[in-house]
Amino acid sequence: MVQGSRKIGDYAIATLGSHTALQILKGAHDEGFKTICVCVKGLEDVYRNFGVADEIISVDSFEKYFEIEDELIRKNAIMIPHGSFVSYIGWEKAGRIKMMHYGSKGILEWESDREKERLWLKASGLMLPKIFKTPEEIDRAVIIKFHGAKGGKGYFIANSPQEFHERIKEYPGDEKYVIQEYIVGVPIYSHYFYSRLNKELEIMSFDKRYESNADSIGRIASKDQLDVGIRTSYTITGNMPLVVRESLLPQIMKMGQNVVTQSMKLTDHLTSGPLEKGLYGPFCLEGIVDPDLNYYVFEISARIVAGTNPYVNGSPYTWLKYNEPMSTGRRIAREIKEAITSGRLDEVLG
Amino acid sequence: MVQGSRKIGDYAIATLGSHTALQILKGAHDEGFKTICVCVKGLEDVYRNFGVADEIISVDSFEKYFEIEDELIRKNAIMIPHGSFVSYIGWEKAGRIKMMHYGSKGILEWESDREKERLWLKASGLMLPKIFKTPEEIDRAVIIKFHGAKGGKGYFIANSPQEFHERIKEYPGDEKYVIQEYIVGVPIYSHYFYSRLNKELEIMSFDKRYESNADSIGRIASKDQLDVGIRTSYTITGNMPLVVRESLLPQIMKMGQNVVTQSMKLTDHLTSGPLEKGLYGPFCLEGIVDPDLNYYVFEISARIVAGTNPYVNGSPYTWLKYNEPMSTGRRIAREIKEAITSGRLDEVLG
Amino acid sequence: MVQGSRKIGDYAIATLGSHTALQILKGAHDEGFKTICVCVKGLEDVYRNFGVADEIISVDSFEKYFEIEDELIRKNAIMIPHGSFVSYIGWEKAGRIKMMHYGSKGILEWESDREKERLWLKASGLMLPKIFKTPEEIDRAVIIKFHGAKGGKGYFIANSPQEFHERIKEYPGDEKYVIQEYIVGVPIYSHYFYSRLNKELEIMSFDKRYESNADSIGRIASKDQLDVGIRTSYTITGNMPLVVRESLLPQIMKMGQNVVTQSMKLTDHLTSGPLEKGLYGPFCLEGIVDPDLNYYVFEISARIVAGTNPYVNGSPYTWLKYNEPMSTGRRIAREIKEAITSGRLDEVLG
Repeated sequence: MVQGSRKIGDYAIATLGSHTALQILKGAHDEGFKTICVCVKGLEDVYRNFGVADEIISVDSFEKYFEIEDELIRKNAIMIPHGSFVSYIGWEKAGRIKMMHYGSKGILEWESDREKERLWLKASGLMLPKIFKTPEEIDRAVIIKFHGAKGGKGYFIANSPQEFHERIKEYPGDEKYVIQEYIVGVPIYSHYFYSRLNKELEIMSFDKRYESNADSIGRIASKDQLDVGIRTSYTITGNMPLVVRESLLPQIMKMGQNVVTQSMKLTDHLTSGPLEKGLYGPFCLEGIVDPDLNYYVFEISARIVAGTNPYVNGSPYTWLKYNEPMSTGRRIAREIKEAITSGRLDEVLG
Repeated sequence: MVQGSRKIGDYAIATLGSHTALQILKGAHDEGFKTICVCVKGLEDVYRNFGVADEIISVDSFEKYFEIEDELIRKNAIMIPHGSFVSYIGWEKAGRIKMMHYGSKGILEWESDREKERLWLKASGLMLPKIFKTPEEIDRAVIIKFHGAKGGKGYFIANSPQEFHERIKEYPGDEKYVIQEYIVGVPIYSHYFYSRLNKELEIMSFDKRYESNADSIGRIASKDQLDVGIRTSYTITGNMPLVVRESLLPQIMKMGQNVVTQSMKLTDHLTSGPLEKGLYGPFCLEGIVDPDLNYYVFEISARIVAGTNPYVNGSPYTWLKYNEPMSTGRRIAREIKEAITSGRLDEVLG
Repeated sequence: MVQGSRKIGDYAIATLGSHTALQILKGAHDEGFKTICVCVKGLEDVYRNFGVADEIISVDSFEKYFEIEDELIRKNAIMIPHGSFVSYIGWEKAGRIKMMHYGSKGILEWESDREKERLWLKASGLMLPKIFKTPEEIDRAVIIKFHGAKGGKGYFIANSPQEFHERIKEYPGDEKYVIQEYIVGVPIYSHYFYSRLNKELEIMSFDKRYESNADSIGRIASKDQLDVGIRTSYTITGNMPLVVRESLLPQIMKMGQNVVTQSMKLTDHLTSGPLEKGLYGPFCLEGIVDPDLNYYVFEISARIVAGTNPYVNGSPYTWLKYNEPMSTGRRIAREIKEAITSGRLDEVLG
């Protein structure tokens, strides 16, 4: 065990082969780390072909993570959690992770539970869409989101209690849902990085998702849509780069700062004490900017999100600050490198 | 006063902290200039955090620009005007600007007054949407734009005199407007740079705006739109990168050349003589390409626009010509540097 | 004649001035080649201004290609075919091309004939939209595409035999068409490069087209669309960058591999034997990803496509593999360079 070593050659960066793994592994390589990619059997080619993984460990499915954790520990690997990791492990099992893990584990409960998430965002002073407690209160356009929805499916829109009761019939199995005010405006995903080492918050980039069929039904003339009976679905298929109106940046910066500050006051279910380290590393505020430039936030991701994938070679924002390509994946590796070489690794593990 | 100096160390590049300031300041840095950012009090963080401003001068509001102009003059700063500068100072006060100013001041009247702008574009041989003098002439889809509209709000669409008279009721305060043929096609913003030093026109990049709610209502199925009564608004929230069909480039190049040539024949309201220097530096033609590949232009911006912000690290077009990252902001600084070191600074100030 | 030379200085890279020529010529320059651009008279400026062409040969129209082919042969030039080349020369005349030509000529028949193309894609195991043999079989939303359609015009949507017969009246001249199931989902264009030298398949990038008016009618509220009677058209005006959901990559890689493998079993109409070299170099699968993440492919382009133009300075995918900017145009030049210097040029000419 060389966890106390200050040489990055004694460590490896590991992640699951999905979501943002290419970016994470490439970034780790660029910072001089050995890289390990945990792949589902049969799907290794991509990670091999791009040349970003020094080593590939194959598993039958990502749910088998705990079966290969010992191997990762022996290799002194640091796990970079991403959306798929969180989704396959689940916040409930986060306490069982024994290998080095970048980021707060306790925060995962707060991002995964819609009610807790809402408490956090509200306490941070963000604008949120109104939530309706019962279908009968619906008095405007609302979107109904099912808790278990994966990858953007399992939503519907309703304009009245009547419409709600009619459409809910199509989702007999899913029971938990939230009824949320439907804000009309453009989706903007804001990507941040908060450094625990230097206490600085960086705006990394922005993107919009590319959702099927939401981002293509507009290509169908309204008459045809009505004839064919088109309904919107929100399956994520990719991401598109974006810059935001520069005058929005001070507000976006402030929102990020508030979320970080507030995170340190949350309760850590793993220790039942305060979540001392709070939120750090990459995170994302997901929301909608309406025509009056109000930025409503409907979700936070407390780890790297796929919306940073367009920026493997840096974003219009990271190029302002860095004179080298700085993806979010590389920024993570840079942080870990600085933590290791300054003997502060414990501060960025959680 | 070292205005005659040929050392760029004797100068600073200044701009207002908004719009395209990050790009302008970063570009000036890359060319070796000291940089000054004039910020609204309380909104300095963004410009500080990205590390692009050597100095920040805080003001209560951008309208107070003239109160700090003497300080900028003492620092031998050259002002790079952008959309927010033009909007807050106004072309009427442009004659009062005493500090070094990059670009023609007289051109600002021509870009700010919709009728003058139209004369200029028509004389340049560009295709323009038809203008209807009275609501009674409306015989096709038209868009009504209010002159004072800021950031894209204050527009509506009508298909007939009846619809016009019904919808105009919602805008009781705004009196001046234009009734313009509504061209159905994709918006494309073409970004140019014309060098006064070498008389060359460069195509810098293209973008599409990301407007709230125009760029998201298509995500709502037509049935839902009709139920909820969605109407389009055009608040600019950001910009998305784009390349154009290569066979359109010769025409786009020609359009830019015509606008520059024609600009030298316009009248300069500041001198009442011809606008001798004409249009130079960055400018943008804003229009719509219809399904027959006609490029209708509805606006010109005679200075840097926010649509160049996706290209802080260069665009697919500047990478063709330059073997280094060349944003529009940096291209401006490069031009000023070349003007200074060759003793031709006067030629690029206006 | 120095075709056997192993010095790249003895060769030139040539292409027609349109489509992807800027990228191809820039890439060839970066790899150290002399470059020749064949331009339509009067449209040379763009290729001159960007500085990518060492030599420009002007022709009255691209159809006159065969008149200047001898000149290109004397200059020992290698032609890089792109969409405009294929469109102006036509696969039927491909056998008459005598100059060095990058890529298989015989494959052009298979990509140009919709029925042959479909056989190839089906044999490769790809999911294709259902084809209806007669209008009477229409039982869902279908899109009718005319064979001669250029640049995306000449399509319509119908939901029933009745609607088909009504709308077809508007296209009296065009006789050959295909009736294809209309898949609702987001368009994604996948760009590949298959190296004949090292037998590796690379994912180069992804894009979505920017079509007029398909990509802007969604900005018009449904009520206005219905009032104005908007219909969709698909004229290509540009391209937008995109990354795809990382978990789709293994499937996308497999699809590309299958298409390449299958191509070697096709018949070469030029020799009546098998198409031994098959498909190699750049190619593109054009399709739609539906909300269940099924990737339906409706077309293959067996050469470089304009959707790679956003990536003159490399894509998020090429930056993973290469530590230098690698456009598809440059990747072609790199392959040719490696072929020349290793004495294997014949293997990449076709």
